[in-house]
Amino acid sequence: MRHSLIASLFALLSLGAGAARAQDALRDQAKGLFEPIPKTAPALADNPATPEKLALGKMLYFEPRLSDSRTFACATCHNLSMGGVDGGALSSGAAQLAGREVQTVFNAVFNKSQYWDGRAGDLKDQVVNSVMANPKAMLKTRGGPMAINPSELAATKQREIEQLRTISGYGDLFKKAFPGEAEPLVYDNIGRAIAVFEATLITPDAPFDRWLTGDDAALSDDQKAGLKLFIDKGCSGCHNGVNVGGKSYAKFGVIANPGPEHLPAEDAGRYAVTKNIADRYVFKVPSLRNVELTAPYFHTGSTFDLGKAVNVMAESQLGVKLSDDETTKIVAFLKSLTGKQPEIMLPILPPRER
Amino acid sequence: MRHSLIASLFALLSLGAGAARAQDALRDQAKGLFEPIPKTAPALADNPATPEKLALGKMLYFEPRLSDSRTFACATCHNLSMGGVDGGALSSGAAQLAGREVQTVFNAVFNKSQYWDGRAGDLKDQVVNSVMANPKAMLKTRGGPMAINPSELAATKQREIEQLRTISGYGDLFKKAFPGEAEPLVYDNIGRAIAVFEATLITPDAPFDRWLTGDDAALSDDQKAGLKLFIDKGCSGCHNGVNVGGKSYAKFGVIANPGPEHLPAEDAGRYAVTKNIADRYVFKVPSLRNVELTAPYFHTGSTFDLGKAVNVMAESQLGVKLSDDETTKIVAFLKSLTGKQPEIMLPILPPRER
Repeated sequence: MRHSLIASLFALLSLGAGAARAQDALRDQAKGLFEPIPKTAPALADNPATPEKLALGKMLYFEPRLSDSRTFACATCHNLSMGGVDGGALSSGAAQLAGREVQTVFNAVFNKSQYWDGRAGDLKDQVVNSVMANPKAMLKTRGGPMAINPSELAATKQREIEQLRTISGYGDLFKKAFPGEAEPLVYDNIGRAIAVFEATLITPDAPFDRWLTGDDAALSDDQKAGLKLFIDKGCSGCHNGVNVGGKSYAKFGVIANPGPEHLPAEDAGRYAVTKNIADRYVFKVPSLRNVELTAPYFHTGSTFDLGKAVNVMAESQLGVKLSDDETTKIVAFLKSLTGKQPEIMLPILPPRER
Repeated sequence: MRHSLIASLFALLSLGAGAARAQDALRDQAKGLFEPIPKTAPALADNPATPEKLALGKMLYFEPRLSDSRTFACATCHNLSMGGVDGGALSSGAAQLAGREVQTVFNAVFNKSQYWDGRAGDLKDQVVNSVMANPKAMLKTRGGPMAINPSELAATKQREIEQLRTISGYGDLFKKAFPGEAEPLVYDNIGRAIAVFEATLITPDAPFDRWLTGDDAALSDDQKAGLKLFIDKGCSGCHNGVNVGGKSYAKFGVIANPGPEHLPAEDAGRYAVTKNIADRYVFKVPSLRNVELTAPYFHTGSTFDLGKAVNVMAESQLGVKLSDDETTKIVAFLKSLTGKQPEIMLPILPPRER
């Protein structure tokens, strides 16, 4: 009996050592695929983040008077209380209108491009492209800019500048944020300032990142098993890098068509940007950072169920049918991608005078 | 020459003493009419502010999923970055629609009643009465609840509860905020929690309050002269107390009709609440706290010009024609009513699951 006890202890110890080795191997593999979100905001090319520009950018992000109706700010749809999205506020009926689900502003600075179709190269371009048209247009056309013709876009940019000029407090703030410019209150500078603020909207310290950098206890066993499945089944083929996605484009339905609920025929994705038939139904691979906070899923916002979204992706992109247990573990892993949400003190905006 | 120098010094000293006496007299008079905003939030009757209720109330204040469209929160129109108002976002066309300008949530806890017509007795009633109907209704009917019939109101209350139930994170938060209640997630508790948060939205330390409590230098000479005019001309007959208004009702146009631009015939004010013909065109006297931040003015939002608003009031309510100099000084005084704006850290809201 004493011998068998010692044998059991040895077995347990070697099991522990085996698990530790397996975890180290998984971490090595993961380090080759992913990177943690950095703790500090990255610098933007040709757009240094001075304190004045950052403060102005934050104000403009919360500024409803940038919209024609003076009601919608960046923060309305990219809500910093709600994972940087609108929680599917308008997703019902989105598909019919060729509109698309809002993408999160959190960690967007790490994406290769902006929008589901990548039509904006960086954050500043996204802002400059963005149109906060009148609320009716916003409510009818989830796609925003895509659904609005270029002349309307131009007119609205001009209106935004005119509206900001009714708030004399902004004059000085633009001068200080863009020193030495003869006319700093221009549309491009709105984009630059907001981009600098948006670059600070990053979510470090997710359990996955803590695990990746050596904290063994940061992930549960289910989450580690989910990570292994995420890699082994092929999810990480596209969803990799610092944002676990966001760095490439892929056809939705490469193996099997996910059906019109998730992929309606009328929204051909990146094709609208490139006019290349190879880009029909190609979309930017979304980041999975904070994915538990950013339902509903897909460009159509067609499901709030993360497990269902995982299954649709496995079947349509990889030709894989996951077991319930596998889905549960992958979802557990995905929930480990929720980082520390930015702490945002509301800015005080200057009053409008006319 | 030496004698005349001494005489001049005496004259200056007695002038200084005279000014000091005049200031003391003005302060004594002002203390009889006004009170400073307290530095801490007042307690609400039968609605104690536990930390849990306060945290929940803040979340609900920023919660767009309380509206049918899941887009509008309390904070959308009572914007805490903009003096607690919407900056006249929708004021164009408001008069035709019998809608009214948004009133500030800041210091609203000190008002005798809520809304321009006083139809809600307190903050909780205001929330419970408030309907965040679908955005189209919001955009069309500035008056909100008044313009929506009771059956729609009831249905919408039910929808709000149903929508909150799609966010399981709220279950626990309501339980902790309302301990011992069998079903804490009810509409009245939404009102109680939001009211407790709103009671914290006060703006102490305005220059006027600092002067009132003894800091001679907190007001400029123009501001002191403006305060004296504000009292002597009769403005403080209605605009008095801690909120410099907000504690009584008055007919708009008691001496002279301000004209349809400011007082359109179709909005008879408090008459709609009391059905008493004496209340036709009677409105709650608005607080003038932070008035420089809450343009446009009047229930119609008919002007952004504070000087013009002062002149309209002087003529229609007091039968007084102010000189430009008098108007300038009264406006200077009114700007001394801007207090320290609340510092608000954005809450993090739980995700919706279906």
